[in-house]
Amino acid sequence: MTALVGIVLGSDSDLPLMKDAVKILDTLEISYEVTISSAHRAPEKTAEYARSAEARGIKVIIAAAGLAAHLPGVIAAHSILPVIGVPVKSGALEGVDALYSIAQMPPGIPVASVAINGAKNAAILAAQMIALADASLGKKLHDFKEDLAREVEAKDSKLKELGVEGYLNNK
Amino acid sequence: MTALVGIVLGSDSDLPLMKDAVKILDTLEISYEVTISSAHRAPEKTAEYARSAEARGIKVIIAAAGLAAHLPGVIAAHSILPVIGVPVKSGALEGVDALYSIAQMPPGIPVASVAINGAKNAAILAAQMIALADASLGKKLHDFKEDLAREVEAKDSKLKELGVEGYLNNK
Amino acid sequence: MTALVGIVLGSDSDLPLMKDAVKILDTLEISYEVTISSAHRAPEKTAEYARSAEARGIKVIIAAAGLAAHLPGVIAAHSILPVIGVPVKSGALEGVDALYSIAQMPPGIPVASVAINGAKNAAILAAQMIALADASLGKKLHDFKEDLAREVEAKDSKLKELGVEGYLNNK
Amino acid sequence: MTALVGIVLGSDSDLPLMKDAVKILDTLEISYEVTISSAHRAPEKTAEYARSAEARGIKVIIAAAGLAAHLPGVIAAHSILPVIGVPVKSGALEGVDALYSIAQMPPGIPVASVAINGAKNAAILAAQMIALADASLGKKLHDFKEDLAREVEAKDSKLKELGVEGYLNNK
Amino acid sequence: MTALVGIVLGSDSDLPLMKDAVKILDTLEISYEVTISSAHRAPEKTAEYARSAEARGIKVIIAAAGLAAHLPGVIAAHSILPVIGVPVKSGALEGVDALYSIAQMPPGIPVASVAINGAKNAAILAAQMIALADASLGKKLHDFKEDLAREVEAKDSKLKELGVEGYLNNK
Amino acid sequence: MTALVGIVLGSDSDLPLMKDAVKILDTLEISYEVTISSAHRAPEKTAEYARSAEARGIKVIIAAAGLAAHLPGVIAAHSILPVIGVPVKSGALEGVDALYSIAQMPPGIPVASVAINGAKNAAILAAQMIALADASLGKKLHDFKEDLAREVEAKDSKLKELGVEGYLNNK
Amino acid sequence: MTALVGIVLGSDSDLPLMKDAVKILDTLEISYEVTISSAHRAPEKTAEYARSAEARGIKVIIAAAGLAAHLPGVIAAHSILPVIGVPVKSGALEGVDALYSIAQMPPGIPVASVAINGAKNAAILAAQMIALADASLGKKLHDFKEDLAREVEAKDSKLKELGVEGYLNNK
Amino acid sequence: MTALVGIVLGSDSDLPLMKDAVKILDTLEISYEVTISSAHRAPEKTAEYARSAEARGIKVIIAAAGLAAHLPGVIAAHSILPVIGVPVKSGALEGVDALYSIAQMPPGIPVASVAINGAKNAAILAAQMIALADASLGKKLHDFKEDLAREVEAKDSKLKELGVEGYLNNK
Repeated sequence: MTALVGIVLGSDSDLPLMKDAVKILDTLEISYEVTISSAHRAPEKTAEYARSAEARGIKVIIAAAGLAAHLPGVIAAHSILPVIGVPVKSGALEGVDALYSIAQMPPGIPVASVAINGAKNAAILAAQMIALADASLGKKLHDFKEDLAREVEAKDSKLKELGVEGYLNNK
Repeated sequence: MTALVGIVLGSDSDLPLMKDAVKILDTLEISYEVTISSAHRAPEKTAEYARSAEARGIKVIIAAAGLAAHLPGVIAAHSILPVIGVPVKSGALEGVDALYSIAQMPPGIPVASVAINGAKNAAILAAQMIALADASLGKKLHDFKEDLAREVEAKDSKLKELGVEGYLNNK
Repeated sequence: MTALVGIVLGSDSDLPLMKDAVKILDTLEISYEVTISSAHRAPEKTAEYARSAEARGIKVIIAAAGLAAHLPGVIAAHSILPVIGVPVKSGALEGVDALYSIAQMPPGIPVASVAINGAKNAAILAAQMIALADASLGKKLHDFKEDLAREVEAKDSKLKELGVEGYLNNK
Repeated sequence: MTALVGIVLGSDSDLPLMKDAVKILDTLEISYEVTISSAHRAPEKTAEYARSAEARGIKVIIAAAGLAAHLPGVIAAHSILPVIGVPVKSGALEGVDALYSIAQMPPGIPVASVAINGAKNAAILAAQMIALADASLGKKLHDFKEDLAREVEAKDSKLKELGVEGYLNNK
Repeated sequence: MTALVGIVLGSDSDLPLMKDAVKILDTLEISYEVTISSAHRAPEKTAEYARSAEARGIKVIIAAAGLAAHLPGVIAAHSILPVIGVPVKSGALEGVDALYSIAQMPPGIPVASVAINGAKNAAILAAQMIALADASLGKKLHDFKEDLAREVEAKDSKLKELGVEGYLNNK
Repeated sequence: MTALVGIVLGSDSDLPLMKDAVKILDTLEISYEVTISSAHRAPEKTAEYARSAEARGIKVIIAAAGLAAHLPGVIAAHSILPVIGVPVKSGALEGVDALYSIAQMPPGIPVASVAINGAKNAAILAAQMIALADASLGKKLHDFKEDLAREVEAKDSKLKELGVEGYLNNK
Repeated sequence: MTALVGIVLGSDSDLPLMKDAVKILDTLEISYEVTISSAHRAPEKTAEYARSAEARGIKVIIAAAGLAAHLPGVIAAHSILPVIGVPVKSGALEGVDALYSIAQMPPGIPVASVAINGAKNAAILAAQMIALADASLGKKLHDFKEDLAREVEAKDSKLKELGVEGYLNNK
Repeated sequence: MTALVGIVLGSDSDLPLMKDAVKILDTLEISYEVTISSAHRAPEKTAEYARSAEARGIKVIIAAAGLAAHLPGVIAAHSILPVIGVPVKSGALEGVDALYSIAQMPPGIPVASVAINGAKNAAILAAQMIALADASLGKKLHDFKEDLAREVEAKDSKLKELGVEGYLNNK
């Protein structure tokens, strides 16, 4: 099956974080591919990846990078696909540098920034985009949303039943 | 025609900024509607807007707000449509508060943040999402991208011809 | 007994922190209820909670949340009760995002922000509000304030007696 | 009539800002007094003000200050009344220093921080506290809240009617 | 012997840090006293301390506090003695709040801020002030300064001798 | 008369700001000299200035600089006199860079930082240091402090008399 | 003559700023070329520029960009020439985003960051690099450095002669 | 052999970090010397080092320092050699202070700032400068750059082969 979501990592050290995205895509049964590339160390590979993604059937690209996180912006420069940037917490500035490098893109070339280390939300956002043309995925996203509310409700009920002390002891 | 993009403003003071988004959507011939609502002053209206958007045919929501900018997140809480948040520069913190309030969404409910005052990019990003199921729009986005490169080339040629002084005098 | 203070947590991970608030309310014999809700994952529950609180006899709401901490603002949007927001230290920005998302509320809908992780002060502040119509609670708050000064005095006396080295060894 | 709200300014340069608070209190018919004091230049006056406020019938104190804004904290040190701090935008840091100096109070002595320059919200928050024991004021606050929603609705209707261009030309 | 330097701590948790100051004063044979007080929890004690310090023979006050660190400013409000503020690293903001609360004092009431956790430098600075009227202390400070340079020279010689690897192994 | 205070400016663009310091020293009748030097553009002159200051009778050095403000630290490296650093608001970071470059001095070489643009407080702080050995100056500082309180009192009386509107119209 | 320094601007709006660099290069008689390109809007042109620069005889590249300033990093990805990045002050974050996007490059691909808007220093730094193999340029840089010191000396002499008031009136 | 690169450390605590630079220079067979000096504790040694470096054959100076990191700027003040500054992560501000103290140099005296703790990139940047007059070093840098791309390619191939789970288990 062709991958619908392309996940690109600036470094293999970002892989544990991006497993959060992979899990969501698995749950929602959305096909994906995971690629290690680097805007700085492998610029040709990165450009080639971005330029060819649309033709290969990719619908959304998720790019994760830390520090001066140029990867999402560089990919967006080479493709009209929506690019979701995940600023990775790393280094002395703990991801603020990556957030600014991803969110503050100049006019003309957008990147959709999620939170620092927001890999899970990147995957959900990608699913929301794909669901625009896939009603059964939309149904799954409605279910997912209801599950979130149900989980909150379940935890609240448990807290009401056990009280603060009991809940904390029971965790 | 049904609107494909829903633009929501937390305040009418955000309207001049959001004209940048409107212009892009006009250029790309994407239908849209513009709504003033407020997560805080008009919470019911906001929730109702978000809950009904999908059924009314909206594909992407762009929400702009300044300060403690809850509007995009609150809308995202009520819809599975992709929500693009535009942090508005206003107040003493000049939009850093809005950027954090929009980008740092907790896991489960994503918002796609663009730059502070990034209204234009919000519209392009919305177009990229809609183009996933609209090949002719995809064609327009490719043209738009090529135009961006051509404009850079034209400016560079002019600079090469006129020199630094000449270019600055000619502006 | 009807609860006077409603404590709302955006996530059960905030519960250990909020025990600091619970302890103060216990000490001051102020009734309270603790609820897990989420502005984003359980928006209907949150709105319903906020809308019904006043009628149920709640006097003050304390809402704690991290990251893009919309919970206090969303509750304030639905109630005229004073809402105290506790920005929770979490994520890469360690609570600055939550502080800005809570303190920087736009005109019209106030939230009373305490310090990042300031659960204890949130409870004291709630008590101060309730004491406006409860003289015996006011008396307790005066005693509490005097105890704080006495504790400082006691520590200072001990330091004067033991000296710096002795005090540190004795801790 | 005895004042219910005590507004304290660290400097008379804060007076134009605090008129926003005064107007709200006038609208809601809440009595108030306005005092210029300074935690640093007039410490005895400030301490005396804070110590005597409760006995004089003050219910809530609003204290505004810029830079290293100690005024709200110093007042809170001397009173069990709820103290609302308004960080004033001034100096090179434009109010971030004041926000931190007000919001980050240590455990034991709370201050309720509103937004930088959030004078209007300080007054509404004070009203919400006083309304805990004043049902007719509570009624006014419900009306005020409904007016906020109505204003948003009115602006949105006007935008729907005039369109983006028309609305902007009509402003 | 009368103390020349008054060290005031906002909390006994600051004592381990302030031992760095105590050690310098011991080395330079400058008399000092250490007091725990708190601008917020023990405001009368703090004011009384500050008001009486000059008459008791204190020449310089070093005040250390974290979070919304008002202690140095509050002491400076009550005394014409030079007050050195030590912002303490604590809480979610790790001392930036304390630095701003200490350094950004308004015109009229100065505080001399040292670095976050700069207890050692606070003591040296106090010594430099006292040395203005104590030539033998001035001599000690010149020796201290030369020792600093000698230590650097010694470490550099050792590095030159052992090389990078050797030096690191030898540490 | 020998100067007691040495004011050093990193650039003549800092001169208007430092007039605030000069005025205070004039008022308190403290002798001073003003020198333009630069830690970076005139390092020998700066070092020579700092090394010779003590012998020339200078008691306190006030050094003002913006951006990467090394001037106060470089002077402190060459002298045992107390050095007061004034971070100047300039450039894109508006003085935060200067504050960090001045306040965050490493252990061993202290600089006393005042607020960004805190020229006036630098002069008062210098006076407080000189007053340690000059009782008549101490007397002037007590008077100065009382004047500050009296000014606050006068403004407050005027506000009480004129009311908020009247005061603002009368300004 | 072949250009030794390649100046690249992300946008023609950066041209007035970069004239500061051009002037220095003119003064030092270093050949240069100025190119408008954009990492995002003209990625192929930018890559081609960077890949060909060394062979065309360019020795140093100066790249200026604002916001999420990827231009210097992208150029550095394609060349082994030293790349100097000039973060441009623009947008709501006033260049902090650009500074982080330029300075925080990941290991392997360095960029030499100068100050926000530090165009002049970028040119001097480029000259220092070229002077490593050009003794006569080295001589010019020594003269330039001495001129800086002489200018400071001249201003200081004028200040000594005219006094603070006189100097300010004479400016 | 004469050293081409002078590495200067503000403190021997920076030595472990700077081993990253040493390793690169060893790999590229560039001669270097490592010196411990301090702009503040050993100002004469530092000035002497900087003034003599060029004559001793040094081509590039790498200076590392934390906190108010004046070392690179002070060295640049005394030499026309290119100075690369490495802001060291240390203290409460974790290197932001050092970054600002190094990057924000005033016009006239440039320092080339790399990332916080960017020791490795400092060495590569130094090599790039030296390679301007050393074609065989240029060749090595091209090889180094290709190796970086090959490493990325190798990791990506391994990821493609093993999958996300397999790769993580295999690490």
